[in-house]
Amino acid sequence: MIIRKKEHWFRMLFIWHGSVLPRLLPRLGLLLVLSIIIVYLHGSLFSFKVPLNPAPFTLFGLALALFLGFRNNASYDRFWEGRKLWGAVLNDTRSLARQAFTTTGYEIADQEPQYFVQLLITFTYSLKHQLRGTDARADLHQRLPADLASRIGVTRYKPIMLLSEMGNWVRTLKAQGKIDSIIQVAFEESFNKLSDIVGGCERIASTPIPYSYRVLLHRTVYLYCFMLPFGLVDSLGWLTPFIVVFIAYTFVAFEAIADEIEEPFGTEDNDLALNAMCRMIETTLLEIAGQPLPEVKEFEGRIID
Amino acid sequence: MIIRKKEHWFRMLFIWHGSVLPRLLPRLGLLLVLSIIIVYLHGSLFSFKVPLNPAPFTLFGLALALFLGFRNNASYDRFWEGRKLWGAVLNDTRSLARQAFTTTGYEIADQEPQYFVQLLITFTYSLKHQLRGTDARADLHQRLPADLASRIGVTRYKPIMLLSEMGNWVRTLKAQGKIDSIIQVAFEESFNKLSDIVGGCERIASTPIPYSYRVLLHRTVYLYCFMLPFGLVDSLGWLTPFIVVFIAYTFVAFEAIADEIEEPFGTEDNDLALNAMCRMIETTLLEIAGQPLPEVKEFEGRIID
Amino acid sequence: MIIRKKEHWFRMLFIWHGSVLPRLLPRLGLLLVLSIIIVYLHGSLFSFKVPLNPAPFTLFGLALALFLGFRNNASYDRFWEGRKLWGAVLNDTRSLARQAFTTTGYEIADQEPQYFVQLLITFTYSLKHQLRGTDARADLHQRLPADLASRIGVTRYKPIMLLSEMGNWVRTLKAQGKIDSIIQVAFEESFNKLSDIVGGCERIASTPIPYSYRVLLHRTVYLYCFMLPFGLVDSLGWLTPFIVVFIAYTFVAFEAIADEIEEPFGTEDNDLALNAMCRMIETTLLEIAGQPLPEVKEFEGRIID
Amino acid sequence: MIIRKKEHWFRMLFIWHGSVLPRLLPRLGLLLVLSIIIVYLHGSLFSFKVPLNPAPFTLFGLALALFLGFRNNASYDRFWEGRKLWGAVLNDTRSLARQAFTTTGYEIADQEPQYFVQLLITFTYSLKHQLRGTDARADLHQRLPADLASRIGVTRYKPIMLLSEMGNWVRTLKAQGKIDSIIQVAFEESFNKLSDIVGGCERIASTPIPYSYRVLLHRTVYLYCFMLPFGLVDSLGWLTPFIVVFIAYTFVAFEAIADEIEEPFGTEDNDLALNAMCRMIETTLLEIAGQPLPEVKEFEGRIID
Amino acid sequence: MIIRKKEHWFRMLFIWHGSVLPRLLPRLGLLLVLSIIIVYLHGSLFSFKVPLNPAPFTLFGLALALFLGFRNNASYDRFWEGRKLWGAVLNDTRSLARQAFTTTGYEIADQEPQYFVQLLITFTYSLKHQLRGTDARADLHQRLPADLASRIGVTRYKPIMLLSEMGNWVRTLKAQGKIDSIIQVAFEESFNKLSDIVGGCERIASTPIPYSYRVLLHRTVYLYCFMLPFGLVDSLGWLTPFIVVFIAYTFVAFEAIADEIEEPFGTEDNDLALNAMCRMIETTLLEIAGQPLPEVKEFEGRIID
Repeated sequence: MIIRKKEHWFRMLFIWHGSVLPRLLPRLGLLLVLSIIIVYLHGSLFSFKVPLNPAPFTLFGLALALFLGFRNNASYDRFWEGRKLWGAVLNDTRSLARQAFTTTGYEIADQEPQYFVQLLITFTYSLKHQLRGTDARADLHQRLPADLASRIGVTRYKPIMLLSEMGNWVRTLKAQGKIDSIIQVAFEESFNKLSDIVGGCERIASTPIPYSYRVLLHRTVYLYCFMLPFGLVDSLGWLTPFIVVFIAYTFVAFEAIADEIEEPFGTEDNDLALNAMCRMIETTLLEIAGQPLPEVKEFEGRIID
Repeated sequence: MIIRKKEHWFRMLFIWHGSVLPRLLPRLGLLLVLSIIIVYLHGSLFSFKVPLNPAPFTLFGLALALFLGFRNNASYDRFWEGRKLWGAVLNDTRSLARQAFTTTGYEIADQEPQYFVQLLITFTYSLKHQLRGTDARADLHQRLPADLASRIGVTRYKPIMLLSEMGNWVRTLKAQGKIDSIIQVAFEESFNKLSDIVGGCERIASTPIPYSYRVLLHRTVYLYCFMLPFGLVDSLGWLTPFIVVFIAYTFVAFEAIADEIEEPFGTEDNDLALNAMCRMIETTLLEIAGQPLPEVKEFEGRIID
Repeated sequence: MIIRKKEHWFRMLFIWHGSVLPRLLPRLGLLLVLSIIIVYLHGSLFSFKVPLNPAPFTLFGLALALFLGFRNNASYDRFWEGRKLWGAVLNDTRSLARQAFTTTGYEIADQEPQYFVQLLITFTYSLKHQLRGTDARADLHQRLPADLASRIGVTRYKPIMLLSEMGNWVRTLKAQGKIDSIIQVAFEESFNKLSDIVGGCERIASTPIPYSYRVLLHRTVYLYCFMLPFGLVDSLGWLTPFIVVFIAYTFVAFEAIADEIEEPFGTEDNDLALNAMCRMIETTLLEIAGQPLPEVKEFEGRIID
Repeated sequence: MIIRKKEHWFRMLFIWHGSVLPRLLPRLGLLLVLSIIIVYLHGSLFSFKVPLNPAPFTLFGLALALFLGFRNNASYDRFWEGRKLWGAVLNDTRSLARQAFTTTGYEIADQEPQYFVQLLITFTYSLKHQLRGTDARADLHQRLPADLASRIGVTRYKPIMLLSEMGNWVRTLKAQGKIDSIIQVAFEESFNKLSDIVGGCERIASTPIPYSYRVLLHRTVYLYCFMLPFGLVDSLGWLTPFIVVFIAYTFVAFEAIADEIEEPFGTEDNDLALNAMCRMIETTLLEIAGQPLPEVKEFEGRIID
Repeated sequence: MIIRKKEHWFRMLFIWHGSVLPRLLPRLGLLLVLSIIIVYLHGSLFSFKVPLNPAPFTLFGLALALFLGFRNNASYDRFWEGRKLWGAVLNDTRSLARQAFTTTGYEIADQEPQYFVQLLITFTYSLKHQLRGTDARADLHQRLPADLASRIGVTRYKPIMLLSEMGNWVRTLKAQGKIDSIIQVAFEESFNKLSDIVGGCERIASTPIPYSYRVLLHRTVYLYCFMLPFGLVDSLGWLTPFIVVFIAYTFVAFEAIADEIEEPFGTEDNDLALNAMCRMIETTLLEIAGQPLPEVKEFEGRIID
C-alpha cells in the first residue's frame, strides 16, 4: 500500500512513484509511435484512407464507460471487503485477548492466557501466509511450542487448525471448572467469527471476477485506444499523438489499477499491507497481555507491504 | 469457473477459450453478412435510401447503457451472493465440525462426532445436487448408513431433512447429559444459519430477474445492432462491417455474460465451481476431524465445475 | 411471476406473453399516428415549422437516463427485498419447525408440535392475505381449531397475533417444565425474526417511492417521447414513426416495469408468486413434521401467482 | 407522505397536488420571462451577441448528471434508512409487548405488563417529538403516571430515559423472582436495539449531506438553467422559452425533491408520516395487550403526516 | 461540519462561507489568466494554431465522469461509515450506561456505576484523540483516578486498554457475586461492539483510497481543465474564459470536496464534528447516570468541529 502525505495540487500532477504510469510506458510508447505514423500518412493505410470519425467513438465510449465503471466498482468492492475482513481479524483477536483475562479468572502474570494470545498472533500470521501462498513454518516455530508448530506446519488449512487448537484450550478451561458453558459458548462464537473471516478471505482469493468479463473489457479498451488515432487525425492534425496517448493513459491506467486491487492480498503496489497489519495486531495483542511491545520498525520509503 | 493465470496484456487480446466469442460467432457472422450487403447497396433497401444517421443511435445508446448496466449489476450481485452463500456453507460447517469436538467432550477417536462430520459433508453434496437438479443418492449412500441414506433419498428437500437429522444427533447428546441447553442452543443456531443458506440458494435459483426486463433488454440490444449498419454506412463506407461487428460484439457479449452468471449454480463456463467447492469443504472438514485427506485431484485444463 | 425456459436468441425477439408490450400498445399506437401526421406535415404545426433538432434531446436524454436509472434501481431493490423477506419466512419457519421437535423433547407422533407447525403454516398464509388485502378466514379455519380461528379472524394484524399465540405455546411448555429459559429465549428470538419480517413487508407495502418522483419521471418520459418526432423528422424523414415508436417503447416499457415491480406483493405479471411460495413453505414444513405431502399442483401456463 | 391510488397514464401528466411544480412556479416563471427576452434580443446582451452553442452544455450536462445522481441517491438512502428505522421501532416494540406476557408469567389482565406497553407507546411518541422538535409533554402525561411524566418531561433525551425506565421495570421483575438473568438479558438486548434506533434517527437528523456539496450542486443547476436560453436560441428560435422551462423544470424539480426527502423526519409533503406511524404502532401494541383499539381516523385528503 | 439553516434558493447562489470556492481561487485565477491569453492569441501557441475542438473533450469527459463518480461515491461512503461508527459509539455507551444500573443491582447513588460511566466517557474522548493524533492525557486525568490515568496515558492503543479496564470492572462484579456469567457475557458482547468500532475507525483512518486512483483522477481533472480553453475558443470567442472557469470550478470543486471528506476524522470544514459528538455523548451518559448536565456551550458561527 502506498502512503504519501498530501501534496500540493500542482506537484501532484508530476508524481512518478505511486502512479501506475511507469508500468504502462511500453504500451503507451507503442501507441505514440503508431499515432505519429498515422499522422504522417494522414490516416491512410496502404494508400486507402481509413474513413473513421469521432461519431462511432462516442457510441463505443458508452460501452467502454459501462465496462470500466462496472469492473472498477467490483474490484474496489473486493479490495475494501478484504480490508474489512482484516479489520475484523484485528477486532476479534483483540476481543478474544481481553476475554482470555476478564472471563477466565486468569491474571496477567499467568502462563495460560499468554499462550492463548500467542495462538491468536500465530493465527494472524498463518492467515497471511495462506493468502499469499508463502511458508508459514518460520512464524509458527517462533511463537508456538515445537510439537504444536510441527503438527500445524503440515496441515493444509493452518488458520482453521489453529482455531481448533484454541477451542481445545477453552475446552480444557471448562473441564478444569474455570469457566461454565456460557463463557465457553461466548468463546466459540468468537472463533466462529474468525472462521468466517478465514472463509471470506479464501473466497476473495479463490474466486476472481468472471474471466469472460475481463477478456471482454481488456479487448474493448485496447481496440478503442488503437483505433482512436484514425478517428481523430482529421480534426486534430499534428496534435493527435498527444491527445490519443493522454486519453489512452486514462483508460488503460484505470483498467490496470482495477486489475491490481482485484486481488487485494497480493504484493503489488496498491495491495493491502498484510505484513504491516500483522505486526500491528501483534503489538496491540501484546499490549493487552501486558507484554513488552516490539520496537516500531522505522517506516522507510512510501510503500508498505 | 474459468481459472487462468494472468496473461501478458498483448496476448490477452487474442484469447479464445474463456471468452464468450465462440458462442456468439453465428450471430456476429449473420450481422457481418448483413453489413456487407448494406455497404454494397449503399444503405438502400428496395431502392429506397434508409435515412438513418448516428444521431438517433446516441439517444438509443443511452437507453441501452441504462439497461445493460442495470441488468449486469443485478446479475453480478446474484453471482456474488451465490458465492457468498457457498462461502458461508464452508464457514458454518467448519465451525460445527470444530464444536462437535470442543463443546461435546468427545475425542478425535470417537465414532459419534465422526458421524456428525459425515452428516455435514453429505449436507454439502446434497445442497449441490438440489441446486443443479441432479441425483443425490449416490453421494448419500457413499457417506451415510444405508437406512438413513434411503430415508433421506426419497425426501423432497434433502438438505433440510439432513439438518433435522443433525438436530436429532444434538438432542440425543443432551438426553445423554453430555451437553446442556446452552450448548444445544449454540448448535441449533448454527443449524439455523445453514437453513438460511439453503433458503438463500433456493431463492436465487427459483427467482430470476423479472422476465419482462430480459425480453426488453434483449430486443433493444439486437435491434440496435442490426440497425447500426444503416446509421454508419454513409460516414464509414467500406469500414462499416468491421466497426459494426466490433460494437455489436461488445454489447452482445456483455448481455450474454450477464445471462450466464445470472444463474450461478448452473454448469456453464462462468458459473460457480460447486463440485470443486464440495471437495474442498470435504477436505477441510476431514482435516478438522483428524481423518486422512483425499488425494488432491490434478487440476486439468482451465475450467473447473 | 413469469417463468419461461431459456429461448433461442432469435425467437426471444418475438415473444409476446411475458413482455409488457401488449399493455403499452394503445399509447404506442397513439404515438405512431401522431408521428405519421408530423411526417406528413413535415414537422409544421398550424403552418409554423417547429424548429426542433436532436441537440436538446441529448440534454434531455441525460435527465431521463438519470431518472429512469434511479427509479429502476429503487423499484428493483424493493422487489428483491420483498423476495428476501419471503425467503426469510421460509428459513425461519423451517428452523422453528425443526426446533419444535429437537429442543422440546417431543416425538414426531406427538400432537403438540404438529399443532405448532400448523400455527407456522397459518402464519404464512395470513401474512400473504394481509399483504394482498384478501380474506384470511378460510385459511385460518382450515388449519386451526375453530375457536382460535374465530378469535384471530377478527383481529387487525393477524400474523402478529399468531406470533403471540406461538409465544403462548412456548410459555406453556416452560410452565410444564419441558424446556428451560434458554430454550424459551431461543424460540422468542425466532419469533422476533418473524416479527421483523412482517414489519419489513408492511414497510414495503405501505411506503411507496416518493410520489413527486413518480409524477416527475412520468412527465419527463412522456413529454420526451411525444416531442421526439419533431426533433427527428428533418433527418429521418419517412423512417421517423418507426424509430420514434421503437425508442418510446424502450423508455415507456422501462418505466412500466419499474412501476409494476415497485409493489412486489401484488398480482401483476412480474410480481412475486406469493401463492406458490405459501404452498412451498407448507410442503417443506409438513415434510419436517413427518406428515404426508400434498400433491404438487401441475404447473400450467407460464405465470405463477 | 403523499398516498394516491394509481392514475391512468394520461391523467398522471396533469397532476397538480403531489407534484413539486406549484412550489417551483416563481423560479420557472422568472426563467420563462428571461428566455422570452433573450429570444426577442436574438441572444444578444447589450448589443453583443453571446456566442453560446449547445456544445459546452453537453460537457456541463455531464457534471450536472454526476451531481444530481449522487445527491439524489444520498438523499433517497437517508429517506429509506429513516423509514427502516421507524419500521424497526414497530418490530421491536411489538416483540417487547409480546414478551412482556409470554416470558414473564403475567396474564393479559395484569396491570404490570399493561404499564410496560404504555411505556413502549410513549417511547414511540417521544421519539417523534424529539425528531420534529415538538413538545412531548402532552403525550407523556396522557399515557404515564403523573410523577413519571413530570420526571421524564424535563430530561433532554426523553426516549433514552424511557428505556432506562423500562430497564428498571425488568430489574424489578427479576428482583421479585419472576424472571431469571436469561430473560432479563433478552429484554436488555431488545432495549439495546431501540437505543440503536434512537441513535440512528439522531444521526440522520443531525448530520446533513456535506454542505459544500449542496452549495456546489445548487449553483451548477441554476447557472446551467439560466445560461441555457443563450445556447439554444439560435437553433430553436421562438420555441426556446418552452423547451428551456421544461428542461429546467426537470433539473430543478429533481434537486428540490432530493432536498425535501434528505431530512425525512420533517413535515414537508414527501417526508415520512410519523404521526400515522405512531398511531399504527399504538394500535398494534394495544391489540397485542388485549386492549380496545382506538377508532381508525378517517383518512381525508391525500397527504398523511 | 458546517451547519446552516436552509437558505432561499436565490441567496444560496452567492454563499461564500461553507463553499470550497475560497480555497480554489488561486487555481481558478490561474486558469482565468491562461484562458484570456488563449483568447487573445486566438488559440495559437507560438504562432501554431492548436487544432482542438469539442469532440475529444466529450470522449474525455466520459472518462472524467467515470472517475469523479467513482471517487466521490467511495469518499462519501467513508464519510458516512465514519459517521455511523460514531453513532454506534453513542448507542453502545448509552446501552452500557443503562445496564450498569439495571443489570447489576446498583442504585443511582452508588459510586461504582458512576466510575464505570466515567470510563465510558473517557473511552469516547480517547478514541477522538487517537483518530486526530492529539494528546489524550488532559482528558484522561480530568475524568479518571490519577494512577489509572497515568497507566493508560502511556499505552499505544488507549481506547482498547480502557475496554480491558471495563472488562476488569465487570470481572470484579462477578467475583463479588453481584452478577452471573450471563450478565458478564452480555457486558463483554457490548465491549466487543466497542472494539469493532475502534477497529472500524482505525481502518478508515489508516487505509486511504488506493493512491494510484487519486493521482490518476487528479491528473485527468486538471489536464482536462487546462486544455479546455483551446477546445472552446473557436466557438465561444470572448466568452471562453468565463465558461471555462465555471466548468473547471464544478469539476475541481467536486474533486476537492471528495478529497476533504475522504478522511472524515480530520478538522477540515466538512469533516465530522468529533468534539461536538464527544460533548453530546458525555451529556447523555451523565443524564442516564443521574448527574447534573454540563452547560450547553453556546453555538457560535456556522462550523462545529
